[in-house]
Amino acid sequence: MKEISKLMDYRSDVRLVDATMRDGGLVNDFYFTDDFVRDLYLTNIKAGVDYMEFGYKASKEMFDPTKFGKWKFCNDEDIRAIVGENNTDLKIAVMADIGRCNKSDFIERSESPIDLVRVATYLHTIPAAVDMIEDVAKKGYEVSCNIMAISNANDKEIEAALDILGKSPVDVFYIVDSFGSLYPEQIARIADMYLNFAAKYNKKVGIHAHNNQQLAFANTIEAVGDGVDWLDGTYAEMGRGAGNCAMELLLGFLRNPKYNVYPAFQFIEKHMNKLKEDGVVWGYDLQYLMTGILNQHPRTAIQFTKDGRKDYAEFYKEIVVMD
Amino acid sequence: MKEISKLMDYRSDVRLVDATMRDGGLVNDFYFTDDFVRDLYLTNIKAGVDYMEFGYKASKEMFDPTKFGKWKFCNDEDIRAIVGENNTDLKIAVMADIGRCNKSDFIERSESPIDLVRVATYLHTIPAAVDMIEDVAKKGYEVSCNIMAISNANDKEIEAALDILGKSPVDVFYIVDSFGSLYPEQIARIADMYLNFAAKYNKKVGIHAHNNQQLAFANTIEAVGDGVDWLDGTYAEMGRGAGNCAMELLLGFLRNPKYNVYPAFQFIEKHMNKLKEDGVVWGYDLQYLMTGILNQHPRTAIQFTKDGRKDYAEFYKEIVVMD
Repeated sequence: MKEISKLMDYRSDVRLVDATMRDGGLVNDFYFTDDFVRDLYLTNIKAGVDYMEFGYKASKEMFDPTKFGKWKFCNDEDIRAIVGENNTDLKIAVMADIGRCNKSDFIERSESPIDLVRVATYLHTIPAAVDMIEDVAKKGYEVSCNIMAISNANDKEIEAALDILGKSPVDVFYIVDSFGSLYPEQIARIADMYLNFAAKYNKKVGIHAHNNQQLAFANTIEAVGDGVDWLDGTYAEMGRGAGNCAMELLLGFLRNPKYNVYPAFQFIEKHMNKLKEDGVVWGYDLQYLMTGILNQHPRTAIQFTKDGRKDYAEFYKEIVVMD
Repeated sequence: MKEISKLMDYRSDVRLVDATMRDGGLVNDFYFTDDFVRDLYLTNIKAGVDYMEFGYKASKEMFDPTKFGKWKFCNDEDIRAIVGENNTDLKIAVMADIGRCNKSDFIERSESPIDLVRVATYLHTIPAAVDMIEDVAKKGYEVSCNIMAISNANDKEIEAALDILGKSPVDVFYIVDSFGSLYPEQIARIADMYLNFAAKYNKKVGIHAHNNQQLAFANTIEAVGDGVDWLDGTYAEMGRGAGNCAMELLLGFLRNPKYNVYPAFQFIEKHMNKLKEDGVVWGYDLQYLMTGILNQHPRTAIQFTKDGRKDYAEFYKEIVVMD
């Protein structure tokens, strides 16, 4: 049982990362207005959030810039137009998705508004991830690494990956529940594994949760109680499929007086309800619960949502077949 | 850390209680169609649910029967019209709300379709609850007792209540998170307290959670991992304010092969979406998160919802004032 003092006190090493534009961008193809982005930036500053992820640094050879909003590419000058010199406590992050980005798109950190590069990888692309990590670390960036889709992997594979990453210059290992299939009891075990390697190699551990079973927040606070320091959240849970851990739930939970939940309420009232009214769709629904229970990628559920289907029972029959 | 075997295996003492019509009735004044009730009854049988709560046995002197659907009063003959002799494994429950019901409305169990009386009480009405418990136990019913609003109580008060209830003929002590304000770490401590008294007096422990902070399911599976056996759920989380723990999440989580999630998907597809389309409103939203964070009764949030307000930030300022 965790100490009750942990509910009253706080660990100053905890870091909050706002992933609204990156994970949320997956449901509106990164078409956020400048007004939205500027208000989000100011909200994060007022709320005491530590990092704001602006989007992906996606390869323009692989993705047509005319078919996505600019935050899929996160040009340094587009970030600069929002944050200026960013003389604030809020640090700026972007995601580098291994196999879908180029090292050459990252300039020296001293020239860039970006502080943190979040490298996202599958287990089978760990060497490519290390190559990227080494490159951006050498350029001066802080670096974290998200190992995705671990709920389908064997513990031994994950341990091997953490051992390789431990020897790299990465700063933070991220636990990622890509399918929203993990229960808090499993998160506790996974956190234990990650924290052991983090202690060995002097790294930090983070968590990025999905809300398929309404456990994104529960899994995140389970992890922080276990010693995980870096916590991803998104306003109004905006994110792929069932969405993420709600930033406003985290801001309400954390006891460090630097965090304030009130600006989150203002931002959601002004911007997030409007996105929903404009037809952008995300969040918990039965189809995501189903892929979560079955430990499957939510792509079928996302298609079900796009098609406006409501025949849940029929959908379940479609996806439960494994042969 | 809990044993991994608990995620793979099951405890045969676990009991699932469907509270859809009782807690859900609070958001539609108990106006469920007979078609809905009959399908819910059949769904519970197919899903392997152990108890179905039909509603309240409310006093007709206090509540005008012309202003509520019949399930606020749960006349034995109305239940009988749905379940007949109920020659099934599904047991029938009703709630007796202390101070708002009469002992004389309960006939002998041998004459009634009802199996379980769920006595709901506040800490200050424990003696009246014991009086009711003794009466219905003598009439042959199984009896559980929900102690409400414990998140505002001192541990010593709760222990005193459990000690009194322990000496009564009640079968199950229920942990009730009335305000949806409790975190899993707190549930673990409360479960420990209830389980100690349950062991001393040979009782069972149950949990009834609310979803103000998206923790109804997480708190329920925390509790079952701690040894709590009786679990309340409602289909599509239908219930007062932010709603309850979703039955479909519990059915997907529990490993006892007697439980089946598929009938839940069929029922929700047919009935619950329609209720929402018809304008019945419940479920997680920021106003409920706020009363949850502040450990307040959700009545202000329910009013905010009824008024169709969306000015979350203003609402927060209204309720955060304590003087």
